[in-house]
Amino acid sequence: MSEYASPIDDMRFVINELCDLDAIGQLPGYEDATPDLVEAVLAEAGKLAAGVMAPLNRDGDVEGCHIENGIVRTPRGFKQAYGQFIEGGWNGVPFDPEYGGQGLPWLITTALSEMWNSANMALALCPLLTQGAVELLSAHGSDQLKARFLKKMISGEWNGTMNLTEPQAGTDLAQLRSKAVRHGDHYKITGQKIFITYGEHDMTDNIIHMVLARTPEAPPGIKGISLFVVPKFMVGDDGAIGERNDLRCVSIEHKLGISASPTAVMSFGDDGGATGYLVGQENNGIRYMFTMMNNARLAVGLQGVAIGERAFQQARDFARERIQSRDADAADPAPVAIIHHPDVKRMLLSMKARTEAARALSYYTAAKLDTAKRHPDQAMRGQAQALVDLLIPVVKAWSTDNGIDIASTGIQVHGGMGYIEETGAAQYLRDARIAPIYEGTNGIQAIDLIGRKVAREQGRTVNLLMAEIQIVIDALGNADNDILPAIGVRLEEALGGLKKATDWIIDCYSRDLNGALAVAVPYLTLLGNTAGGWMMGAAALATANPGQKSEMSEDFITAKIATARFYADHILTDVSGLSEEVVCGGPSVCEIDFDKI
Amino acid sequence: MSEYASPIDDMRFVINELCDLDAIGQLPGYEDATPDLVEAVLAEAGKLAAGVMAPLNRDGDVEGCHIENGIVRTPRGFKQAYGQFIEGGWNGVPFDPEYGGQGLPWLITTALSEMWNSANMALALCPLLTQGAVELLSAHGSDQLKARFLKKMISGEWNGTMNLTEPQAGTDLAQLRSKAVRHGDHYKITGQKIFITYGEHDMTDNIIHMVLARTPEAPPGIKGISLFVVPKFMVGDDGAIGERNDLRCVSIEHKLGISASPTAVMSFGDDGGATGYLVGQENNGIRYMFTMMNNARLAVGLQGVAIGERAFQQARDFARERIQSRDADAADPAPVAIIHHPDVKRMLLSMKARTEAARALSYYTAAKLDTAKRHPDQAMRGQAQALVDLLIPVVKAWSTDNGIDIASTGIQVHGGMGYIEETGAAQYLRDARIAPIYEGTNGIQAIDLIGRKVAREQGRTVNLLMAEIQIVIDALGNADNDILPAIGVRLEEALGGLKKATDWIIDCYSRDLNGALAVAVPYLTLLGNTAGGWMMGAAALATANPGQKSEMSEDFITAKIATARFYADHILTDVSGLSEEVVCGGPSVCEIDFDKI
Repeated sequence: MSEYASPIDDMRFVINELCDLDAIGQLPGYEDATPDLVEAVLAEAGKLAAGVMAPLNRDGDVEGCHIENGIVRTPRGFKQAYGQFIEGGWNGVPFDPEYGGQGLPWLITTALSEMWNSANMALALCPLLTQGAVELLSAHGSDQLKARFLKKMISGEWNGTMNLTEPQAGTDLAQLRSKAVRHGDHYKITGQKIFITYGEHDMTDNIIHMVLARTPEAPPGIKGISLFVVPKFMVGDDGAIGERNDLRCVSIEHKLGISASPTAVMSFGDDGGATGYLVGQENNGIRYMFTMMNNARLAVGLQGVAIGERAFQQARDFARERIQSRDADAADPAPVAIIHHPDVKRMLLSMKARTEAARALSYYTAAKLDTAKRHPDQAMRGQAQALVDLLIPVVKAWSTDNGIDIASTGIQVHGGMGYIEETGAAQYLRDARIAPIYEGTNGIQAIDLIGRKVAREQGRTVNLLMAEIQIVIDALGNADNDILPAIGVRLEEALGGLKKATDWIIDCYSRDLNGALAVAVPYLTLLGNTAGGWMMGAAALATANPGQKSEMSEDFITAKIATARFYADHILTDVSGLSEEVVCGGPSVCEIDFDKI
Repeated sequence: MSEYASPIDDMRFVINELCDLDAIGQLPGYEDATPDLVEAVLAEAGKLAAGVMAPLNRDGDVEGCHIENGIVRTPRGFKQAYGQFIEGGWNGVPFDPEYGGQGLPWLITTALSEMWNSANMALALCPLLTQGAVELLSAHGSDQLKARFLKKMISGEWNGTMNLTEPQAGTDLAQLRSKAVRHGDHYKITGQKIFITYGEHDMTDNIIHMVLARTPEAPPGIKGISLFVVPKFMVGDDGAIGERNDLRCVSIEHKLGISASPTAVMSFGDDGGATGYLVGQENNGIRYMFTMMNNARLAVGLQGVAIGERAFQQARDFARERIQSRDADAADPAPVAIIHHPDVKRMLLSMKARTEAARALSYYTAAKLDTAKRHPDQAMRGQAQALVDLLIPVVKAWSTDNGIDIASTGIQVHGGMGYIEETGAAQYLRDARIAPIYEGTNGIQAIDLIGRKVAREQGRTVNLLMAEIQIVIDALGNADNDILPAIGVRLEEALGGLKKATDWIIDCYSRDLNGALAVAVPYLTLLGNTAGGWMMGAAALATANPGQKSEMSEDFITAKIATARFYADHILTDVSGLSEEVVCGGPSVCEIDFDKI
């Protein structure tokens, strides 16, 4: 298995040139985020990711988690690595300094999150879930709750979990049955939750569960769901850990991948009711969840990027070492490293191009998130928020679909060795396969995109995005270069396909809802491929920008332009067909009686 | 986990209507292959597949194979199931009746092979490999060798293996180092072979290894490789099993999937040399291998179809049972079975359409194989053989790529449950992932397609195929029906894309070999998608054919037309973009200095 190295050159490039770190560093509260600081943070995080977390990835997968009498043991080394992670202060990077966080932009958190997930996705899931819990408590918890829990959750000494799913309530949270009955200043929680990531484990002293449940008089459906903080161990007013709460891990799942992360079935209230504290008001639980949704979906999208990067590095390194078959077009009959064979090059470039495009789009979205939170001008905040809302489902679904394709291609580059688990390439496919499922399936992301994000506002924000893409097309067309104008032509064709499909989606959504829903996924893929091409076009332009803000080597520039060109010729070419599929494909799904299939 | 049921309705339809069983049954030696016999064979095989082999699939995956002191134990039940398989005479279906075979057409074997692989791909690999060994011996072995080995290999009492790969020689067999030194009437074989499927196990009394090795004076490269029969146990002239030969299984691999099938590292000649018998003449080993290559590649392509069918059945059954979320377009707020949600329908139809198209193309190719072997008219044989040679790499690569996509989509249909191993959906993805790698990687198939099959003959056979597609387009256009002409329009657009890409490949191959090789895979995908659309168009036409030869229910007809329509709108729409990628995509791969990537 190859070693992981954080792709700091590309991260720096994307952060500075495509996400305008200078502008982010001028937002109130983000003044510390200078290029120098970012450089130092990336370098330091890279060491932890590559030196401590990555080496545990394969062993953790083999060992997995084990449960005995309700106690879950994580793989050897995980507790220590997590200890180093929180000692370094990495858990609190984006959070409120008042509670011990670093208060740095989400843009920077996003780059770090990519590293943790490339290095060890199963381990990185622990802080990923904690992040969501911290956001919920920060935004909606009482001062008392925040005082009791937040500091140790931000430090990472205690982790947070999300207890949403029940056997009958996955995508459809309206079907939730867990109960919460008021009992003085708290509630008694009963019910069973499934698929609880890091719901039980041995890495932290306490586990703070964010639990959705219904109070007795709550209205049915999603408007009757409340949110509770339910700690594994009770916490006194002095912050000291007390008695065990009435909750337990019943079992952990045997999964396709991310085997080193415990996925727990949790039972609350077997002995009368777990003590839980209401967050905010009753019946507002689902609304609160939306607070953290954008960040959580961004974080999962990042997992697609992260696995893509790791799989690419391993496949590239293997292809440089593996000697097999002569160069088809050379006189010399001696076998060469397979990286010289055109089809292997094509596979590697496809992995690299998709990863870099998804990285750029994810980071760009994170930068807009920072702008939406902090920009002094309300209109700018609103515009940034609209872009975030539009792009989040794309980042989540498109990046994670890409993650699977890239990991699968990585296996193929290895040939027979790729199918052997010891090689490590297969794990990336197994790990990557969860990301399109959790945090809202990719189908749900696509429905969110075409409904709430495109049709409901009659395409206002997607038109804004398309105007931004047009600016890049124009600049590519004017570039003094053989390659950039050709990339611009492809991007313009793709933009045409996006426009056509968008018009159709907006029209169809109101007159034939199911017809539109039937092509939501191809529309999202189309938008993702086009937006990725926009980012790669902008990246190619930035390499030629005399006012560039970051250092880049000649090799980096050459590779970036080549990768953008590949993206245009091999991935943007898909858009016309996807556009046609969107425009014509609804009836061939909906007019079928599925009882006869 | 859902139960598997052999898709006999579609198999019967494809065999009779698309592959013209009547014509196959008129070929010399195939007179027994009547529709009634086929019906009986399919029904009987379906019982064994569904009742005996399928129930072992998940348990076999969990248990895997185990090795102790060179002895390999297959999972519980495998030996008994294999025993029933050979007792039923299923191993010998396509082989020479003189040696106990049934002498039935490959068309029928192909349908059966699909069943075995749907039911239990890991178990089905044993007869799949034996088939190749039988073909080699039948075609090139001396009468003495045939007398000694063939009967028990055809019965399946002894299985056959293919010993090609060595650590330094995978795709590139020219690098083979195993040695064979003449020693009286036999040879002494020494060397190590890897990735030997069923190289050691406990299901048969003997294992007959087909081994590639070099004699001392052999020329270098692939022209110096000879083929040997090397039995695990020596076999006397009377057919009795004698002493153990000097070969052993060193270890077995820990793989991503097909865990119930042992993949062995074999060591030959640790004690001086394993006794091997030369097949045919020295230095002709690679040439002989081509004898079985078409059938072996067809069989692996079938694995893509088989996994697709199994994954589809499981996802469909799950979607019918799983209640989640209301119908978006209905007034009733009650949750419904997810099969009613448009995006789930789209996923299921995509699985079904790709599977049926690949089934039809595979069976069609098998029928052409029968024609090429048995037609009394030499010109007809030649034409059929040319079509087989063209289509085999497409069936192998396109069907197995589809297999991965379909299995992955099947997981997605299940949501979170799909990621849990107990559900069974994840195994299909793990199992499917090998098929694009072995029996020549899909990249090698694509290179074979554009070189030996398209460019070398200046497109003669692909033009023949395109003329066949045009006939279906014309018939669709003339159909008295709303849907068929629309399918015809899509197919015509795809044919245009295929023509354009073919012209380009032929031109480019001679002037810029690497540029052509760089887009070989997209070209193969394009050809596969178009040929699949041709088959689905022909299938839609056949449902309306008043001269139809097989029974089909109204529901079957409705579903088939709907599936063909879906294929046209959602899969054929990809072809224009693939064509553009082929025409433009070579330079963006080849002009890159990969030392800078």
